Amino acid sequence: MKRPAGTFSLGLDFGTNSVRALLVELGTGREAATAVHPYGSGREGILLDRAEPNLARQNPADYLSGTAACVKAVLAKARKSVKGFRPSRIVGIGIDTTGSTPIPVDRAGVPLAFAKDFKRNLNAQAWLWKDHTGHAEAAQITELAAREHPEYLAKCGGTYSSEWFFSKIFHCLRADPRVFEAAWSWVECCDYVPAVLTGAARPEAIKRSRCAAGHKAMFHDAWGGLPSRGFLAKLDPRLGELRDRLYGKTYTSDVPAGGLTKDWAEKLGLPAGTPVAVGAFDAHLGAIGAGVAPGKLVKIIGTSTCDITVWPADRPLADIPGLCGIVDGSVLPGCFGLEAGQSAVGDIFNWFVAGIKPGGERRGSHEALSRRATRLRPGASGLLALDWNNGNRTILVDQRLTGLLVGQTLHTTPEEIYRALVEATAFGALTIINRFEEYGVKVGEVVACGGIAEKNAFLMQVYADVLGREMKIARSAQTCALGAAVAGSVAAGPERGGYASFADAQAAVCGESPRIFRPDRERHKIYRELYRLYRELHDAFGTRTWTGNLHRVMKDLLGVRDVQRTNDGG
Amino acid sequence: MKRPAGTFSLGLDFGTNSVRALLVELGTGREAATAVHPYGSGREGILLDRAEPNLARQNPADYLSGTAACVKAVLAKARKSVKGFRPSRIVGIGIDTTGSTPIPVDRAGVPLAFAKDFKRNLNAQAWLWKDHTGHAEAAQITELAAREHPEYLAKCGGTYSSEWFFSKIFHCLRADPRVFEAAWSWVECCDYVPAVLTGAARPEAIKRSRCAAGHKAMFHDAWGGLPSRGFLAKLDPRLGELRDRLYGKTYTSDVPAGGLTKDWAEKLGLPAGTPVAVGAFDAHLGAIGAGVAPGKLVKIIGTSTCDITVWPADRPLADIPGLCGIVDGSVLPGCFGLEAGQSAVGDIFNWFVAGIKPGGERRGSHEALSRRATRLRPGASGLLALDWNNGNRTILVDQRLTGLLVGQTLHTTPEEIYRALVEATAFGALTIINRFEEYGVKVGEVVACGGIAEKNAFLMQVYADVLGREMKIARSAQTCALGAAVAGSVAAGPERGGYASFADAQAAVCGESPRIFRPDRERHKIYRELYRLYRELHDAFGTRTWTGNLHRVMKDLLGVRDVQRTNDGG
Repeated sequence: MKRPAGTFSLGLDFGTNSVRALLVELGTGREAATAVHPYGSGREGILLDRAEPNLARQNPADYLSGTAACVKAVLAKARKSVKGFRPSRIVGIGIDTTGSTPIPVDRAGVPLAFAKDFKRNLNAQAWLWKDHTGHAEAAQITELAAREHPEYLAKCGGTYSSEWFFSKIFHCLRADPRVFEAAWSWVECCDYVPAVLTGAARPEAIKRSRCAAGHKAMFHDAWGGLPSRGFLAKLDPRLGELRDRLYGKTYTSDVPAGGLTKDWAEKLGLPAGTPVAVGAFDAHLGAIGAGVAPGKLVKIIGTSTCDITVWPADRPLADIPGLCGIVDGSVLPGCFGLEAGQSAVGDIFNWFVAGIKPGGERRGSHEALSRRATRLRPGASGLLALDWNNGNRTILVDQRLTGLLVGQTLHTTPEEIYRALVEATAFGALTIINRFEEYGVKVGEVVACGGIAEKNAFLMQVYADVLGREMKIARSAQTCALGAAVAGSVAAGPERGGYASFADAQAAVCGESPRIFRPDRERHKIYRELYRLYRELHDAFGTRTWTGNLHRVMKDLLGVRDVQRTNDGG
Repeated sequence: MKRPAGTFSLGLDFGTNSVRALLVELGTGREAATAVHPYGSGREGILLDRAEPNLARQNPADYLSGTAACVKAVLAKARKSVKGFRPSRIVGIGIDTTGSTPIPVDRAGVPLAFAKDFKRNLNAQAWLWKDHTGHAEAAQITELAAREHPEYLAKCGGTYSSEWFFSKIFHCLRADPRVFEAAWSWVECCDYVPAVLTGAARPEAIKRSRCAAGHKAMFHDAWGGLPSRGFLAKLDPRLGELRDRLYGKTYTSDVPAGGLTKDWAEKLGLPAGTPVAVGAFDAHLGAIGAGVAPGKLVKIIGTSTCDITVWPADRPLADIPGLCGIVDGSVLPGCFGLEAGQSAVGDIFNWFVAGIKPGGERRGSHEALSRRATRLRPGASGLLALDWNNGNRTILVDQRLTGLLVGQTLHTTPEEIYRALVEATAFGALTIINRFEEYGVKVGEVVACGGIAEKNAFLMQVYADVLGREMKIARSAQTCALGAAVAGSVAAGPERGGYASFADAQAAVCGESPRIFRPDRERHKIYRELYRLYRELHDAFGTRTWTGNLHRVMKDLLGVRDVQRTNDGG
């Protein structure tokens, strides 16, 4: 659907350390201007506690001051760079944030952190996604759900994480009952920001995100929304009481949360009433920005990965064991959003480079190791690794797993190990794709985004060769903010110059992948052999059900090595 | 048995790169003087072939010139440092060499390498122990023996090695028939040197070493000495014919090979007729120098290990599966010499330090890594390794095995890996000791020698804690040369001022271990748990018979880690 040039949508992406604004031209997808504003509090925006390494909080005021600063900055840039630009040409605003990042709020929806009493209390701030203080509570929730409501866990991979909504609230209840008692409700960051901008901050007025609710709070229509009051009360009666002050309805991001208030319109320099979309998590809007669609998997490759695809809600879909989440409408309305992930990817390479520091001064950087590893043939090192240095999120859902490297000789080099680690993460990625396909969710195409995908061509080629599929790099380097802008344009709707659906908006602004890595037939053949061995180790160390013998593993690796080295010479 | 002070025995130790002479005072064991002479030919004494990395030869002339140079040097030193020293106070000479290091010789026992025709022919030189050019022939010998004479293999661990006597000769026959045809016989280096010094170089006159014959040439009285003519002829008829020109009788090193010839006496500055003992391999005389006895295991710890113990020949002893050799009299007369080994020990640490170069410039040396690894508690890293980077000699006898490391997290450090590698070699050492004991050969005490044992207190303590046994360091830093001197003194016999037996001589000159590492009860307890997991991996990857599941391995390692880290804090 063509739109007149010179209309825009604004995406706001609330990351871990900063907020980014991206102005996207409708019709062309041109990224007209962008601005970043770092959060002012704590260390790079994160409030820490020296005595508790699991703790990570944020000051909710940073979200608001960051919004103001960075929207004003992006408008100023647009005025300079876009001929005839006017803020009134912005049809809508979309918002993505990290999550689960719940904020305790009072009856009016004002964060407790803003009250004088709680200003300096870390437990009254936003509980950032990577806060793990609730690990004991997470275990307790998992245990109770496994016993009494296994269906709650079936949609989130079988284990309720310490990073999620109820683990954090439950931990607050125990660790700081004064904050828990003072909180009327808890609001996800991705719900809080749109609520404030649209003047609908009272907890019962907030349009809560389907994505946050479904993936992190065990919300599902099949059991009437959030987990039952009885279930929560068994954890603690006060948690049961809280349920009534949370929410019973959720929304997808094609729905407007409301229009920009007069106050905020003035603060930002935008027309009052500009539609603001219901918020969602960064990875989910990032997947939209990368063009996710049925049959297309988006991999956000960073320190870990988030793997997202969708499946039409009107077609049958079983619970897929080991997935982090299966939520109707969490990514695209009318589709199941399917989320999987690898607990560590870039983190493993960073560990090897910065923790082990191999190869002396000159030869140990990512660049040097990648350059040398590129020249090696698949299998020629005789090495094979498991990518579990930080546990396994999908498909084993087991944090108590660790890394493994097999095949070392007296001649093994750092670049051979580096390559084996990259290959291991690719085998892990293949295991996820295979799991999707075993349950009928076909994955024809893989689109990667994130820094590693863009910078490391070596890794992308290994992935293409291991997966036996084309690996595309998303057109935008800011897929999350782009996805948020897409949501803004859909929330505005065609009558206000936006789009009727995500699919329409994606077609108009997301564009085609400019870089494609194609699998090599011969290399893929070798990797199929190696993957068979990877899977053997994966099942032997990762499952209770495997039985067998691993006598062939080292010999088969040496066999592949010997053939590949002979090929080298020929 | 007391001897008057001021009598000596001379040990000559022919190593890979040089020859060493050691003058030992009888009665006290004082090492009165020592001298080393590097071989003059090739690269650090080894003749190499750029086109064939498996090839390693030596010029036999180096053995003779080295003997002259280094005996003269040691006598000169003794004259300076020992009051009233006279060469006539040397009661005997003993000789140890590397092996299997066979030399092709003519009818008179002169190496073909000395003939003008063959001077520059690498195949006419001494075939150094680490020459692997005969690997195909070794496989063929193993295969034929397994089929037709499994008893031949039962005494040498089930596999005939490419490093051994017949593999080399058979390879010469195929690769250079002209040399093979010109060779009347083949003589081990440890037989060649005593034969030359005593004027008994004619092949049929040489007193061949029991140790070389039994461990490397499948010689055993049970089947009439060397493998049968029929067996060798099946490999090649010419090999069958060679058998008659080899030998039918072997000797232990308490027997004199003869007396020093007049020529050599003049050359060396020693009395003619000085008794020279029958030669033996360095590791075997090294074990004697380290005080080997029934119940006492000597570990020569270097790039690899050689593990030697003895067992009274009059007590029952089964074939012990996986041992490199079980040979009556190969170490001490009247005892079975039992040889085992680990294919890589120091080589694994060297690989990590020099090949992987971890930890940047300052933190990656053996010293730095050992220093930091010492401070870690057993199990606190959660790591476990297999010590198979160069295959497994004992008890699996399988070169087609490789290294394995499990338990890596994003926080694993180089010193943790270093410690895990050291522990892995200790677990490998324990596996050997357990195998001895399963077959009734008790190992009460372990004596270590070699550079690593002397220099690395960290490693010695880990070994003590893993083995649950005292680890002693041999008194002498030159156990091989000392053992050779012991042999010289026994070959001389009491009537010439020497000793009646190895036991007498050991008691008089080998002395007590000055440094003992004692196992810590608590650490040993942890290591028993870790060893159970090591053994699981060992059997899962190393044997055909194991079946099971490894689901507990990573979890148990994390369990031990968590306990050990808590202890750290407490």
